[in-house]
Amino acid sequence: MSVLVVGSVALDSVETPFGKADNVLGGSGTFFSASASHLSPVQLVGVVGTDYPMDTLKTAFANRPIDIAGLESAEGASFRWRGRYRHDLNVAETLETHLGVFSNFRPKIPEQFRNAPFVFLGNIDPRLQLDVLTQVAKPKLVACDTMNFWIESRRPDLMKLLEHVDLITLNDAEARQLTEEANIVKAARWIMQHGPKHVVIKKGEHGAFMFTKDTIFFSPAYPLESVFDPTGAGDSFAGGFMGYLAKSGDLSEANLRRAVVYGSAMGSFAVEKFSVERLLEITPEDIKRRVGDIHRLCNFEQDVA
Amino acid sequence: MSVLVVGSVALDSVETPFGKADNVLGGSGTFFSASASHLSPVQLVGVVGTDYPMDTLKTAFANRPIDIAGLESAEGASFRWRGRYRHDLNVAETLETHLGVFSNFRPKIPEQFRNAPFVFLGNIDPRLQLDVLTQVAKPKLVACDTMNFWIESRRPDLMKLLEHVDLITLNDAEARQLTEEANIVKAARWIMQHGPKHVVIKKGEHGAFMFTKDTIFFSPAYPLESVFDPTGAGDSFAGGFMGYLAKSGDLSEANLRRAVVYGSAMGSFAVEKFSVERLLEITPEDIKRRVGDIHRLCNFEQDVA
Repeated sequence: MSVLVVGSVALDSVETPFGKADNVLGGSGTFFSASASHLSPVQLVGVVGTDYPMDTLKTAFANRPIDIAGLESAEGASFRWRGRYRHDLNVAETLETHLGVFSNFRPKIPEQFRNAPFVFLGNIDPRLQLDVLTQVAKPKLVACDTMNFWIESRRPDLMKLLEHVDLITLNDAEARQLTEEANIVKAARWIMQHGPKHVVIKKGEHGAFMFTKDTIFFSPAYPLESVFDPTGAGDSFAGGFMGYLAKSGDLSEANLRRAVVYGSAMGSFAVEKFSVERLLEITPEDIKRRVGDIHRLCNFEQDVA
Repeated sequence: MSVLVVGSVALDSVETPFGKADNVLGGSGTFFSASASHLSPVQLVGVVGTDYPMDTLKTAFANRPIDIAGLESAEGASFRWRGRYRHDLNVAETLETHLGVFSNFRPKIPEQFRNAPFVFLGNIDPRLQLDVLTQVAKPKLVACDTMNFWIESRRPDLMKLLEHVDLITLNDAEARQLTEEANIVKAARWIMQHGPKHVVIKKGEHGAFMFTKDTIFFSPAYPLESVFDPTGAGDSFAGGFMGYLAKSGDLSEANLRRAVVYGSAMGSFAVEKFSVERLLEITPEDIKRRVGDIHRLCNFEQDVA
């Protein structure tokens, strides 16, 4: 089955302790697509400006099952982000954000995408996320992401959105901000009381939790010896998670757990190089090996006594 | 088999967002003993002042296999620590530290403790930790803890100690400080190159890693809905870890992994109440259940495809 993603398609300029990259492919929709496409067909909806290097994207996505029929080209400048990571790779310092055409983005879901069984509403204005839901027909699973900016400025819309999604992914700080609960377990329960049946709380290098009414699952982040550029890790996580679900179409607890681990695996690849570089070069064997590594990482036998 | 622990025996005054406790049982040796004694006999070596409520300790440890023959009573004041946790329960704010008789502590290992097969050198001056090793005969496993203060002020002694221990437990910030490596995997490798075959890096609520030359194991911290008082979590972790090893005497990778999980389980109990309260009331069934909960938390089946 395929997964529809609505998200940003941007140009990133990033500086880390290990190097710098200018105007490389970035944005939540881009990372999500590069990641999910290893597992299932992807339908990308987004907007770019007239300055966007569409050939570079097409070359990057060549031979991948990513349909960019929903990637609109609008008059104006593309979304650009410039950021820096210092010693602590967990903290991105934003130096510049130019929303460009993204600030007037009104997602239009192409006719042929409207029956997508899996829908991921990337981190955009919750009003637009809600609007996307009016354009699609009964998906099997709808998931959304959000961020501090929308929690602050669009809380009523975000709360309304929660009633219409099956799952939300957000990081621990965002979960605390949304719920005003310091404790992550209580925060997850609060969110589930407001709509989603599943809550995935990402903790960056500290792994990710998935909460349901009766269960908690945790996947560690794979402990890499070199983290090169953390940009896009969360979106690549979401891509691996949704891609794995769409691949199988199975929403059992056991499969959702595997999906979280695929998310962790894809997130761990994303940070090994700049932009989507590493995501584009990995093979099915690399992914399988990383999932196996995560399995071994946490594996222990309970004693019989 | 039994485990010998050398550590602090103190009186803590703690304030958390949920309440306060004054002059309650604290110190690394106390938490370690209360924790490990659920799994194996413990021999405690430490020092208290003449003001120490020995009856309270004896009542707390009654019916537990904790031998306090090595708990010396010296002329002077007991070690007292006063601290506070605010919203972020990961960060202890030290308000007062009075070392008292602990500042002149010279551990004397009683004759009947000198053949202890498992030895834990709690967080004291590395010179004293080295001195303890001259007083014991060929333990099966020697582990040590340390802290920022000794890394700064006693680096040469600490490096010498590393050559004589099989395992070190320390938290992620301490591992980074000791090795000057930001990356935790590289930090662990650096430490293993300087002596210990096993490195356990504790990340508080984010779980714990155990590194060996060829393997990495990770146990999450159990996601509690209420963390009441984090004091002593690390020492209780060490107690659960060493107690489990001493119980079985088995140093296989599989058993070391289980020991880390027992450490996580005991650490998670410690934080549910003030002081050693919760550690003293839990039953073998509680421990077994928590270990099972941690197993379920990370458990997933790899797909066959």
